[in-house]
Amino acid sequence: MKPVSLVEIIKKGGKLALSGKKISWFPPSEWLATYNKDTLSSDLIAALIVTIMLIPQSLAYALLAGLPPEVGLYASIFPLLAYAIFGTSRTLAVGPVAVVSLLTASTIGAIAAQGSADYLTAAILLAFISGLFLLLLGIFKLGFLANFLSHPVITGFINAAALIIATSQLKHLLGIKVSGRSFYELVTSILSQLAQTNMITLTLGTAVAGFLIWSRKGLKKLLVANGVKPLLAAVISKAGPLIAVIITVLISATLGLEHYGVRIVGDIPVGLPSLNIPSFNPELWSTLVGPAILISIIGFMESISVAQTLAAKKRQRITPNQELIGLGAANIASAFSGSYPVTGGFSRSVVNFDAGAETPAAGAFTAIGIAIAALLLTPLLYFLPVATLAAIIIVAVASLIDFSTMGQTWRYSRADFAAMLATIIITLLFGVEKGVMSGVALSIGVHLYNTSRPHVAIIGNVAGTEHFRNILRHEVSTSPRVLSLRVDESLYFANARFLEDYIYDQVAKRPKLEHVILQCAAVNAIDASAFESIEEINRRLKDSDVKFSMSEIKGPVMDRLKRTEFFHHLTGNVYLSHYQAIKEIDPESLK
Amino acid sequence: MKPVSLVEIIKKGGKLALSGKKISWFPPSEWLATYNKDTLSSDLIAALIVTIMLIPQSLAYALLAGLPPEVGLYASIFPLLAYAIFGTSRTLAVGPVAVVSLLTASTIGAIAAQGSADYLTAAILLAFISGLFLLLLGIFKLGFLANFLSHPVITGFINAAALIIATSQLKHLLGIKVSGRSFYELVTSILSQLAQTNMITLTLGTAVAGFLIWSRKGLKKLLVANGVKPLLAAVISKAGPLIAVIITVLISATLGLEHYGVRIVGDIPVGLPSLNIPSFNPELWSTLVGPAILISIIGFMESISVAQTLAAKKRQRITPNQELIGLGAANIASAFSGSYPVTGGFSRSVVNFDAGAETPAAGAFTAIGIAIAALLLTPLLYFLPVATLAAIIIVAVASLIDFSTMGQTWRYSRADFAAMLATIIITLLFGVEKGVMSGVALSIGVHLYNTSRPHVAIIGNVAGTEHFRNILRHEVSTSPRVLSLRVDESLYFANARFLEDYIYDQVAKRPKLEHVILQCAAVNAIDASAFESIEEINRRLKDSDVKFSMSEIKGPVMDRLKRTEFFHHLTGNVYLSHYQAIKEIDPESLK
Repeated sequence: MKPVSLVEIIKKGGKLALSGKKISWFPPSEWLATYNKDTLSSDLIAALIVTIMLIPQSLAYALLAGLPPEVGLYASIFPLLAYAIFGTSRTLAVGPVAVVSLLTASTIGAIAAQGSADYLTAAILLAFISGLFLLLLGIFKLGFLANFLSHPVITGFINAAALIIATSQLKHLLGIKVSGRSFYELVTSILSQLAQTNMITLTLGTAVAGFLIWSRKGLKKLLVANGVKPLLAAVISKAGPLIAVIITVLISATLGLEHYGVRIVGDIPVGLPSLNIPSFNPELWSTLVGPAILISIIGFMESISVAQTLAAKKRQRITPNQELIGLGAANIASAFSGSYPVTGGFSRSVVNFDAGAETPAAGAFTAIGIAIAALLLTPLLYFLPVATLAAIIIVAVASLIDFSTMGQTWRYSRADFAAMLATIIITLLFGVEKGVMSGVALSIGVHLYNTSRPHVAIIGNVAGTEHFRNILRHEVSTSPRVLSLRVDESLYFANARFLEDYIYDQVAKRPKLEHVILQCAAVNAIDASAFESIEEINRRLKDSDVKFSMSEIKGPVMDRLKRTEFFHHLTGNVYLSHYQAIKEIDPESLK
Repeated sequence: MKPVSLVEIIKKGGKLALSGKKISWFPPSEWLATYNKDTLSSDLIAALIVTIMLIPQSLAYALLAGLPPEVGLYASIFPLLAYAIFGTSRTLAVGPVAVVSLLTASTIGAIAAQGSADYLTAAILLAFISGLFLLLLGIFKLGFLANFLSHPVITGFINAAALIIATSQLKHLLGIKVSGRSFYELVTSILSQLAQTNMITLTLGTAVAGFLIWSRKGLKKLLVANGVKPLLAAVISKAGPLIAVIITVLISATLGLEHYGVRIVGDIPVGLPSLNIPSFNPELWSTLVGPAILISIIGFMESISVAQTLAAKKRQRITPNQELIGLGAANIASAFSGSYPVTGGFSRSVVNFDAGAETPAAGAFTAIGIAIAALLLTPLLYFLPVATLAAIIIVAVASLIDFSTMGQTWRYSRADFAAMLATIIITLLFGVEKGVMSGVALSIGVHLYNTSRPHVAIIGNVAGTEHFRNILRHEVSTSPRVLSLRVDESLYFANARFLEDYIYDQVAKRPKLEHVILQCAAVNAIDASAFESIEEINRRLKDSDVKFSMSEIKGPVMDRLKRTEFFHHLTGNVYLSHYQAIKEIDPESLK
């Protein structure tokens, strides 16, 4: 193979076909060509708004992940640049997010003490393995694996995770020390420590939470009503968390709140992240591979949902496998900056979109904004009360809780609701990893169960037509010599025996029977197990002197059957239409 | 609830409806009423032949399971009686079988030393838990769970298990001591010990194996050719293993082979099994629950296959959930007789059927035959060379190896073949439990993968008809304003996003598009995840100013959709037929 120079790749639009859909090594070539002053100013405004939102979020989510605040800022610089280069969504805002931070805390909390060097080492390696895994999924086009998380399982998981996150932050709002990581441990620990509540911390935290809730809707209205221009009002209203940070820093510094037992953030190192090489401790790798895969998939799901939603609004397309590469690169960048797993955040991306971001350059500009903050603003955060960050987290995750989908799922499908409820309960009782795993197993189980008992109808001819319909629902004519069956499902291992059983039962009931004809119009596939069952049906019916025929077999199914000896053994025939079959076998039964 | 007396149950035919299909507490009421002298004599002859076959098999399979020979006989008395009372197959011959014996050895070998009291205790508890599990599956009608073992996985597993069984018996044929349980360990251990081979043992074992292979086909022919009546010739030809036992006992006793290093069976306790209460050690229970479930399911699969095959030949029906109860009772009886897990054996049942067994009474008579053997014949087996039993096992399992199905699966479906091959390789490398588990996971994975990328066709109108066909395969007319899609798969979580992606891709390509119509004739179900995807498609198409409609929705799918708000949000309409849809939306596109 001829080596391809980087310049050539960029010139050609960077498209290298691997197999099937194209994966691009340099997606910016798509938008760089048309970049102009207008897009630049749109991107700059969006970047400003997102930066204002991201500074307090970075600090808060690092707290949630059990990491020092500066690590949150580090997660918001180079990962954003990496995504801007390798991702396809024009408006996705990558960085630390709540659920991934919780998963990080839950994974690493089990193997290292918070604040220890081992804890940070593990977080960095987690980001690195996640990045590698996402890259591999993208390169091998395995993005479809994420689909095995069903919607009910995700909804259930997010609800339970939000509850755990909010509970885990209550200690900072109450100013108490709490142990435990599962929901149950957290709740009992909080209840036992309730008497130690620091009233000043609680007042401050509650006030911040109240302000944040109000600022989401009320602030913009208030500003506009007072003559502030809508664009500026929008910027300021997104700055609610930043305003809360500034005000509480001022209060905390002025009143010396740390002397009254209010925990403050303290020293944050000034400067950009230094280059970090992930650990190669094999034991740590083997411990973290499982959780890293889980974090990658959940992060990818969150990211791709919001990316697709936003892309659809402008009739743009994102490429899921390219997104995997973008997020993989972002996580590897995060690991090399000494930080923890990142993904595309929901609320931040929506803000980025609404603020008018036109290209991924907005993400790069946001990275520059956070870099400036890391260089200049960190000394100002010394007096920041931890309760402020906790309030920001609690308000953010409260909006993740979604009861309406739960109600809708209950009405739509009891089985899916059961999978959702089980995910919630197991997540709360046994932790996030077990919760998701059980949810996945359950939703696969529910699917297999449902398809393992397909709808099978005995059909008869609708007088005067060539149609055959369910004898239970329609006025149809049948023949005592012929049993016509329609099965409404693809045939595969989980339902192959069901069909066998059904047919033998029906045959045993009909002593005069001479023919069984299976109408296969709804059979989209027949796997090897079902194929053996069909051969077995043919063989056993032969033992009972009943001929077995099939009608209306679909093209791809027919192609596959033709590769076997089946049609040599088939005691009956294959018919293009069920009407033809009956016309040939028992024309008198047609009225 | 009124208590029901046993007499009443028997009088009423013992049918108590639990829910849905009836489960019978006393199935013999079905055949006892018509029992007469003819059925009695048929059953007696069949029982005699099966007893002759079962005596050496019982001893051999106990050896394979790592248990004393009498335990094999015990497994062939009360379990057979229990099955005769609670089972539904008229010809199934229950007792120890090769694969279940291997699974027993593999499970217990990991936790206790062969020959120790702990080993037997564990084997008994394994039978008890298996019995309980089968009973519970039967009572709660969960027999369908067995369907999650796909045919390729079973074939792969049986092939690998047969290979492991044969290898594990080679040591007895060579007269060497071998350690290890996995295939790799066995092979390396045998190779390292090959120099210690006892030539007399090897000669004897090889001669027995050769005789057994020949007797399967050659013996009956020879006898018939020499004027023996066919029925008697058939009986004698099934007695190959028994003849081998008798001859080698005589040789061994006469020549005093044990003094030449030939291992003999030695003392076997005389008498019937005494009542045994299974252990209630909770630690042992928790160790054995997993393997017991696996053994139950594999045993049930083997049993139900042969039972159904034989029942179909006489247009009889067996009830899978009742079979679970029959096999559960047999295993509990085995535990109480101090023995190990049993199930319906393939070759023995076929012999029972061919020998003319008419009712389960044949099984009861076989049990009496084995009881007589346990009372009278065991002293005669003192000199029986272990190599004879090993040869019986090797010849029996050699017939389980099935390359033709492997070849057929390869031709039919590469994905199924991959699952089969993986099962074989993992079983050989990592043992039987891991092999089956991986196989199940793989076949579920293959199914999900296949259905996660359903066939979606863009369809157009066939001129002059109301039919719509794939634009790639047929001459059809389409409209630039309307995109008609047909999806050939039920929609569920694994393929919901695929459909979304597909639709967004197609819409992004067509700037003039105003309508998307999804033809749902092949959609047998829509789960909660897919429902959310459809809502999302509707929502996103709305954002792109494209209306979304659906046609030919099946009744049950429609019923479910009607329970939601979906039709209030739907931007387009629901049409009974696709033709109606196009006639209303863009009649000019119809030629």
